[in-house]
Amino acid sequence: MTHAERLDRLAEIAVRIGVNVQKGQELVINAPLDARALVQRLAAHAYDAGAALVVPLFADDVIQRARFIHADEESFDFAPSWLFDGVAKALDQGAAMLSISGSDPMLLAGCDPSRIGRAQRAAAAAMKPMRNIISSFATNWSILSFATPGWAESVFPDDAPDAAVGRLWDAIFKVSRIDEADPVGAWQAHVARLRERCDTLNGHRFAALQFRGPGTDLRVGLATDHLWAGGAVEAANGAVCMPNMPTEEVFTMPHRDKVDGVVAATKPLVHGGSLIEGISVRFEAGRIVEAHASAGQDVFRSLIGTDEGAARLGEVALVPEASPVARSGLIFRNTLFDENAACHIALGQALALNMKGGCDAARGANESLIHIDWMIGSGQVDVDGVTATGAVVPVMRAGEFTLRPVLIST
Amino acid sequence: MTHAERLDRLAEIAVRIGVNVQKGQELVINAPLDARALVQRLAAHAYDAGAALVVPLFADDVIQRARFIHADEESFDFAPSWLFDGVAKALDQGAAMLSISGSDPMLLAGCDPSRIGRAQRAAAAAMKPMRNIISSFATNWSILSFATPGWAESVFPDDAPDAAVGRLWDAIFKVSRIDEADPVGAWQAHVARLRERCDTLNGHRFAALQFRGPGTDLRVGLATDHLWAGGAVEAANGAVCMPNMPTEEVFTMPHRDKVDGVVAATKPLVHGGSLIEGISVRFEAGRIVEAHASAGQDVFRSLIGTDEGAARLGEVALVPEASPVARSGLIFRNTLFDENAACHIALGQALALNMKGGCDAARGANESLIHIDWMIGSGQVDVDGVTATGAVVPVMRAGEFTLRPVLIST
Ligand SMILES: [Zn+2]
Ligand SMILES: [Zn+2]
Ligand SMILES: [Zn+2]
Ligand SMILES: [Zn+2]
Repeated sequence: MTHAERLDRLAEIAVRIGVNVQKGQELVINAPLDARALVQRLAAHAYDAGAALVVPLFADDVIQRARFIHADEESFDFAPSWLFDGVAKALDQGAAMLSISGSDPMLLAGCDPSRIGRAQRAAAAAMKPMRNIISSFATNWSILSFATPGWAESVFPDDAPDAAVGRLWDAIFKVSRIDEADPVGAWQAHVARLRERCDTLNGHRFAALQFRGPGTDLRVGLATDHLWAGGAVEAANGAVCMPNMPTEEVFTMPHRDKVDGVVAATKPLVHGGSLIEGISVRFEAGRIVEAHASAGQDVFRSLIGTDEGAARLGEVALVPEASPVARSGLIFRNTLFDENAACHIALGQALALNMKGGCDAARGANESLIHIDWMIGSGQVDVDGVTATGAVVPVMRAGEFTLRPVLIST
Repeated sequence: MTHAERLDRLAEIAVRIGVNVQKGQELVINAPLDARALVQRLAAHAYDAGAALVVPLFADDVIQRARFIHADEESFDFAPSWLFDGVAKALDQGAAMLSISGSDPMLLAGCDPSRIGRAQRAAAAAMKPMRNIISSFATNWSILSFATPGWAESVFPDDAPDAAVGRLWDAIFKVSRIDEADPVGAWQAHVARLRERCDTLNGHRFAALQFRGPGTDLRVGLATDHLWAGGAVEAANGAVCMPNMPTEEVFTMPHRDKVDGVVAATKPLVHGGSLIEGISVRFEAGRIVEAHASAGQDVFRSLIGTDEGAARLGEVALVPEASPVARSGLIFRNTLFDENAACHIALGQALALNMKGGCDAARGANESLIHIDWMIGSGQVDVDGVTATGAVVPVMRAGEFTLRPVLIST
């Protein structure tokens, strides 16, 4: 297959299996400007699938960075609420959403961390109505990636720019199962495996997960009535979407007040154009009480200071080392990829699908303007499940699942 | 100067003199995706001028065309109201707007005219709140151009693509006065000349203008309390902007019921990716009662059928053959340029600044969802002013102004 053919296939999979746009549905596409070629193919496939209208919203890295260099000091608490409110309105009225990730991880390198923190807080507040719709799966949505030059250079710094982009595309196509003979069939089989893993974990009804590894000794209490999810999701409008492509995780809801111990990140975190490395934090009764990072510490501390819930967990996810993303051996510096290569936790907002009847603070659901995943799993990390009676069940050893299905007598 | 330097200078003029963005003001930029390099420079200059935030909204020609090829028949009455309403809200809250024109004039060539008509009508209706803010100058705004490959090829079909883009840029830079030693001074002097021309025409208080030329014998009655405008405009927020770059016209408000006779277009009209050539219409009591076009007739008839006001005039404008745009001898197939190379009329919505106290239907102001300028002037067209008492005063001969200032005794 030529590159154009693979890109077209990626677009078709994203439209049909990722967001699964419905006949007569509007589709909003968020994309970096570099991803133009992919957005064009997404639009064609969406219209072929019966989309009523495709509205692309392009962002330009250079313009985003220009703000932090040229704008007045007093302007950084400002965000385009009218645009995020508009998108929320579109989703409310039934639109689906596709987002393309692929920003340069070093986009804001060297920019003032306090300006970045203020701008991110303002944006998070302005995006709240839109995020609520997304995190509650009121409509169908999905995220996929595009190998932009800035991102590729960051993943393959020793390669020539074109070679770096080529290698990153190879990795994206591979973990997106685009090169397989029957990509749709491969995705369906994969989604079924994730479903099975969720069923197993749901059957155990663990009260907590215990993570142990270098720099990590963390007990994550799970929310009452928590549910494990992964792979495909049926949105409230009835459309079954696959929110992430790739997707390798099964995830559930931690209890906002029941996380204790220390945990060290196993991969760098890239958030909004800032690189945060060497994260190490200590939790007490659900809340981060100590936070360090070897790089980007100011930005990280500013993130967890966004609001009360930003220093608590909204998600815990399990991903085996056997996942194709992890097997690639690459550090993608892109959450969509790195979170599908390692167990992770997310600071901030919990997801409605992870609790019976939706988010409920009384049962442990966390609330925040942010939802930021960061990686805590590796081949050196073990995970145990702890039952309500204190029994300990091995879940993962050296990064691989060891848990067996629970036999449920009926 | 290198091309990059000229582009940067164009951006600076557009920010400082065109939209004249104010300190603390948000700036929305509508642009074709091809204009990325210019938008990046506009953003940097806007932030340097104190803009609080720059929000670019990029449109992609390929995606717009894909709709007309791939989408379902029943979807063409749909428009993204949430996006236009969002922009209207931003403008309402004080944002300024810059728009970059430069779409491929042949973008929708070969697409079904009835689909195009339905989509344009839906878009016009959805844009109404935004257009009201723009046409009443509630905020400062401006339009400039970018030489996209598709547009350049259409203007210079016999040149190689790169050469065509280069020639179009030369023309844009020239009429934008970018190459002059002191562009800001040159623009100020030009704006003062247009101001003087408006004063002269306002002094005459004509009841009507009479156009005569090949295929044209048209009497355009002017609205009661009409005002001539041109060059710079002081928006309601106090910012003085220059709505078009280039700008060579002085324009006023026709009376919606007092236009009679026949008129032939002197240049092609490009609207929303469709080319309309050889327009010839007959007016009776302000309304088009017969309309022909040698190309694009279906699209043209669909436009004038948008609503009751779409077949009536909202603007009449005078432009001399001596204008730099006209002297270039080019047909730009882009209204921003062609309307500044020839006298023109606009179908549809009247502009508030062209009537004392703003638009008032009782005094002849037209109302419509559309405002579409088309060219009726040339070196073979004469224009007379007719006073309330029936006296005839020569205004233009062979496309050049002959009118002298009125001496007003105080
Ligand atoms: Zn996750
Ligand atoms: Zn997450
Ligand atoms: Zn005009
Ligand atoms: Zn006009």
